[in-house]
Amino acid sequence: MSASIEEFDIIERYFAGKIACAHPNVVLGPGDDCGIFTPLEGQDMCISTDTLIAGTHFPLLCAPDIVAHRSMAANLSDLAAMGATPFAYTLALTLDAESATHLWLDRFTDYLEKFGGRYAIALIGGNLAQGSLSLTYTVLGHVSEGQALRRNTAKPGDDIYVSGTLGDAAAGLRCLQGSESAPDKETPHKETPYRETTALVDRYYFPTPRIELGQSLQSIASSAIDISDGYAADLAHICKGSSVSAEVWVDDLPMSTALVNYAGEAEARMLALSGGDDYELCFTAAPERGDSINALAEQLKLNITRVGRITEAKNNEARVVLLDRNSNEINLVRSGYRHFG
Amino acid sequence: MSASIEEFDIIERYFAGKIACAHPNVVLGPGDDCGIFTPLEGQDMCISTDTLIAGTHFPLLCAPDIVAHRSMAANLSDLAAMGATPFAYTLALTLDAESATHLWLDRFTDYLEKFGGRYAIALIGGNLAQGSLSLTYTVLGHVSEGQALRRNTAKPGDDIYVSGTLGDAAAGLRCLQGSESAPDKETPHKETPYRETTALVDRYYFPTPRIELGQSLQSIASSAIDISDGYAADLAHICKGSSVSAEVWVDDLPMSTALVNYAGEAEARMLALSGGDDYELCFTAAPERGDSINALAEQLKLNITRVGRITEAKNNEARVVLLDRNSNEINLVRSGYRHFG
Repeated sequence: MSASIEEFDIIERYFAGKIACAHPNVVLGPGDDCGIFTPLEGQDMCISTDTLIAGTHFPLLCAPDIVAHRSMAANLSDLAAMGATPFAYTLALTLDAESATHLWLDRFTDYLEKFGGRYAIALIGGNLAQGSLSLTYTVLGHVSEGQALRRNTAKPGDDIYVSGTLGDAAAGLRCLQGSESAPDKETPHKETPYRETTALVDRYYFPTPRIELGQSLQSIASSAIDISDGYAADLAHICKGSSVSAEVWVDDLPMSTALVNYAGEAEARMLALSGGDDYELCFTAAPERGDSINALAEQLKLNITRVGRITEAKNNEARVVLLDRNSNEINLVRSGYRHFG
Repeated sequence: MSASIEEFDIIERYFAGKIACAHPNVVLGPGDDCGIFTPLEGQDMCISTDTLIAGTHFPLLCAPDIVAHRSMAANLSDLAAMGATPFAYTLALTLDAESATHLWLDRFTDYLEKFGGRYAIALIGGNLAQGSLSLTYTVLGHVSEGQALRRNTAKPGDDIYVSGTLGDAAAGLRCLQGSESAPDKETPHKETPYRETTALVDRYYFPTPRIELGQSLQSIASSAIDISDGYAADLAHICKGSSVSAEVWVDDLPMSTALVNYAGEAEARMLALSGGDDYELCFTAAPERGDSINALAEQLKLNITRVGRITEAKNNEARVVLLDRNSNEINLVRSGYRHFG
């Protein structure tokens, strides 16, 4: 921490004054021992906390607007997965020498303010510490009483859907990491045009939390989760939580042209299955909801793809079974993506 | 992270299963994308977040029960300062190689469970990451609508009170740090008996959040803050927030015998004024509340001492003025204690 920039100055200049945005239910924003809010009538509150550490969850020396976007989007994505409407958040920020500067804080809070405004989420408290750069958000959202989407409520017979395209963010991370972890040499691929690489990197840097989709799914989906650990891993959470199994039609997984061009078809499929950080929603719904889901996709101008089916868990073993287009079981998933590894 | 202990195992074994305690308003505990709670009727919610980092906010290689106590007490203290009743919390835990072990996690969560039970606060969400050991809590409490104690509502003429004794935790930290920052050589002091040193260290390791006091002060105090940065610094927050000044009767500051024996009278006073981490409450109240406050002290079996008076801020400058027993202004405060330094 440079001697010229002090904890209370930072709080006053960048947080209490600048970001704390108005919300009729926020009684008191940052600056006291606690923030105060009045709960919304007839609403349950959803709460989630998530830490992002420089060098682990985003590259070291990342631009402050990328740090702001990625960290906040990852947190909002948890609200999206419950079908909740963002309401307020706290931010515990640990700053290092590079980030405890006016230049960094200015850009970071500018971006946070814009992003917070876009999703109508108010800063209601925070903490500053000195150390390696890391950000812990706690986000609050609201949802009509009893209507939150969970991961433990999928039923055999339900269809499995996924929003957007999968694997882009993981490929974007590979682009950033350079040749070291480039696609497998045995899977040669076309030279990827610059704009496609950029598109993949952007998916990693600037994920879109699927807030509107989550809200709309409240009365449609039987369960939901956001894809942060990777499609297969996150679907496995639904299966385990719901004591069901799942069949995944691997050839139907939605993949972007940029991803296939970059990684080749086979590796792209692997990334779509195992790559993390897409922050798309994976959800299940009874078959008769198909029309509503198609209508929703059109309304939101968002790709929603049916990619499998929930089945009974045989012998109480919740399994994710991968099927090729001939309904043969395949074994594709690598140990994959672990934030905590 | 040892290869034998994985994120989801830790969550299941130590957090989702063990700690998450029942509360009628907690609809869903840890394990999904969000926790869910139903707000309490007629209550405002108070929320606060706080990060503690090993090596900064507690010594490296601290025993897990000390880490659990200190980190949770520091967070509950923020609820106490608002007069709020603890309700639920999230914990974002970043573990290093020493703490990502069954031995550490067992003891840590044992203690957290006991401590959480004692204050009836339920774990409702969390996050695990790998890095330097740090803990970010977000605590939620409730308080009758409009009744939260704030720091911006002190009025000229109010008396200033403080609970317990001051400076003990800062002296305890010195004991831990050894001779390096021992009391000033020009202030010789008696050799401190071992049990008194222990008492000071215990005040640093095991602070008591003044939850009951805060709750009882709702209808009595005009403003409140908890003493984490040091008495003078925290009183200055009240003054700045309320646009008032304060006179502090330095000779009346409550100090323990252990502190005076350890540091000598003059240095003890300095620690009482500037030392952080006591987690006592500093509050203001109209003079006619004196009897209620004395009764409360008796009821809670807790020292509550009147240590000054709120005055008008002259020229709009909120000042904390230190007075000796002859009402002469003195200048005692060193730059003092900064968590973020």
